Amino acid sequence: MEIKVIRQIMEWNEDCSAEIKELLKKNSVLMVNIMGSPGAGKTSLIIELAARLKPSFRVGVIEGDVAGQIDALRIAKLNLPVVQLNTAGACHIEAMSIKHILPYFDLQQVDVLFVENIGNLVCPAEFNIGEDLRLALLSIPEGDDKVEKYPLMFSVADALVIHKYDMKTYFAFDDIMVEAQTKAINPLVNVFRASIIQGDGLAELATWLGAKITAKNIMQNS
Amino acid sequence: MEIKVIRQIMEWNEDCSAEIKELLKKNSVLMVNIMGSPGAGKTSLIIELAARLKPSFRVGVIEGDVAGQIDALRIAKLNLPVVQLNTAGACHIEAMSIKHILPYFDLQQVDVLFVENIGNLVCPAEFNIGEDLRLALLSIPEGDDKVEKYPLMFSVADALVIHKYDMKTYFAFDDIMVEAQTKAINPLVNVFRASIIQGDGLAELATWLGAKITAKNIMQNS
Repeated sequence: MEIKVIRQIMEWNEDCSAEIKELLKKNSVLMVNIMGSPGAGKTSLIIELAARLKPSFRVGVIEGDVAGQIDALRIAKLNLPVVQLNTAGACHIEAMSIKHILPYFDLQQVDVLFVENIGNLVCPAEFNIGEDLRLALLSIPEGDDKVEKYPLMFSVADALVIHKYDMKTYFAFDDIMVEAQTKAINPLVNVFRASIIQGDGLAELATWLGAKITAKNIMQNS
Repeated sequence: MEIKVIRQIMEWNEDCSAEIKELLKKNSVLMVNIMGSPGAGKTSLIIELAARLKPSFRVGVIEGDVAGQIDALRIAKLNLPVVQLNTAGACHIEAMSIKHILPYFDLQQVDVLFVENIGNLVCPAEFNIGEDLRLALLSIPEGDDKVEKYPLMFSVADALVIHKYDMKTYFAFDDIMVEAQTKAINPLVNVFRASIIQGDGLAELATWLGAKITAKNIMQNS
């Protein structure tokens, strides 16, 4: 009984995810699902990347949180279209929520849509939301044992961002091992080392995303 | 349909939690549910507290992880009875898992049983596991916006541990605000500021737990 219901939700989610993919394709919007623990620095990274992408691309943001709108208020200061999604207790975003939110955007005026998922290394990795890319953040203060403990998140990521890299001075964090463990379960993953404080990796990450946005745009228009 | 099933799981969990409470009461075991984000320092704090409690009390540990046994191996070095629970994808521990694990312990030889929950600020707060006390950890590098974003966790905690307190030098973290926000939704919560590196707060926390263990023991034997 329980298993059956879970399967129904999953199938429903997949149908919904496919609808979103179609809509995004029609409008040439690249959707990026940003995942990581609470406090991994997801919002700060979105703000930095949005600032770097803004001169060339039109950026939109969906901010997911269990409660509150702190993050959407931070994003709104950048004068970007932003919608706050409150999951009211749920620990991940499902495709249905994204489907309901997309009409709030003028998708013809958006090139890249960042979705900040709920701070959680487990469940968000299980639910497709129609995204083109998944970024998994792991911040140095969280510790270097997370790939072994939360393998699904690291196996589904298109890019791993080892974040708060400036903190490496203060924590025993073996980033070479983390990269090797991630590549062992996810050989094609792109690994970035990034710091908002010192600026490491942000230009590389923005460039990588810019290329993906451009590719999606060309694919649609060719 | 979905709501009905969720309620069934919850009711099942409550029945199971009540059975565990009865068993722990009979054996005078205080169970402490340790919750917090991935990398909040749950295992390290358990190790420190176990070392401080060991001269006076008999300590056991259940280590919950989605996958792997890194944490149980760390605990086993202390020569304490420890069982690793792998949830195989699930983002929280349910009472049924604890019920299946308890027979692996000689409960007559245990005074306090720490349960390290899955690293997650959302779901573990929703499931009683038969515990006497809930400790919620929030580490400084995670940021001071977590009470507003994840209110349930902070509202159900018997104690809030503001952890990695030595990191306060490097992060803009308003711990006075975090304490006030937590007390606004949870007036009886005990707040500790702790650092494994500098030793802050550990003696106070061990003393508080020691008093709770003793009280449970007296209640049973009176």
